[in-house]
Amino acid sequence: MKPIAALPEPPYTAVIFSNVRTEGDNGYGVMAMKMLELAAQQPGYLGVESTGDSNLSITVSYWADEDAAQAWKSVHEHAVAQQRGRETWYADYQVRVATVTRSYGPEGQ
Amino acid sequence: MKPIAALPEPPYTAVIFSNVRTEGDNGYGVMAMKMLELAAQQPGYLGVESTGDSNLSITVSYWADEDAAQAWKSVHEHAVAQQRGRETWYADYQVRVATVTRSYGPEGQ
Repeated sequence: MKPIAALPEPPYTAVIFSNVRTEGDNGYGVMAMKMLELAAQQPGYLGVESTGDSNLSITVSYWADEDAAQAWKSVHEHAVAQQRGRETWYADYQVRVATVTRSYGPEGQ
Repeated sequence: MKPIAALPEPPYTAVIFSNVRTEGDNGYGVMAMKMLELAAQQPGYLGVESTGDSNLSITVSYWADEDAAQAWKSVHEHAVAQQRGRETWYADYQVRVATVTRSYGPEGQ
């Protein structure tokens, strides 16, 4: 997977998931991999960028529109993971749902 | 600095800066610290979240509105850093400018 997602022209929806992990893995790694695979199968999925260090992780998932992002939030396996995340994996987190209006890289400033 | 930014209620603007670094520091660390300090002094600055690993770094800066984000892009020292980034620090990057419409954490789903 290329670390920077190749996306269509805006507008599209970005879900910025910033989280601080608790100590230990506790099944997190396997779940995270599974969720990335499952997200990629959802209607309206455009791509994902995910990284982190010991202080903070950020995963930005990109969707065709807010409805697609909302539908992914409700997918059963994802809802189960969210619940387990609140109970076990995340010391703190914040989700921001946003509409991307502009995007540029090295070629276009 | 708390890793997850404490922000007002949406709407506000998020600038998602995803980047892949070149090898070596080449003055990057000092510049990055300086830019975080300088950004925090700009009008309309709300907060920042920044993390990364050896593959990908993501910095999300939050602004009162798009004009504030745009003004920060044009601040002289930042423009110089952007130029040096394109030449030296970044193998690849993408900037997405977005309007955050919803935000929730552990307390509100």
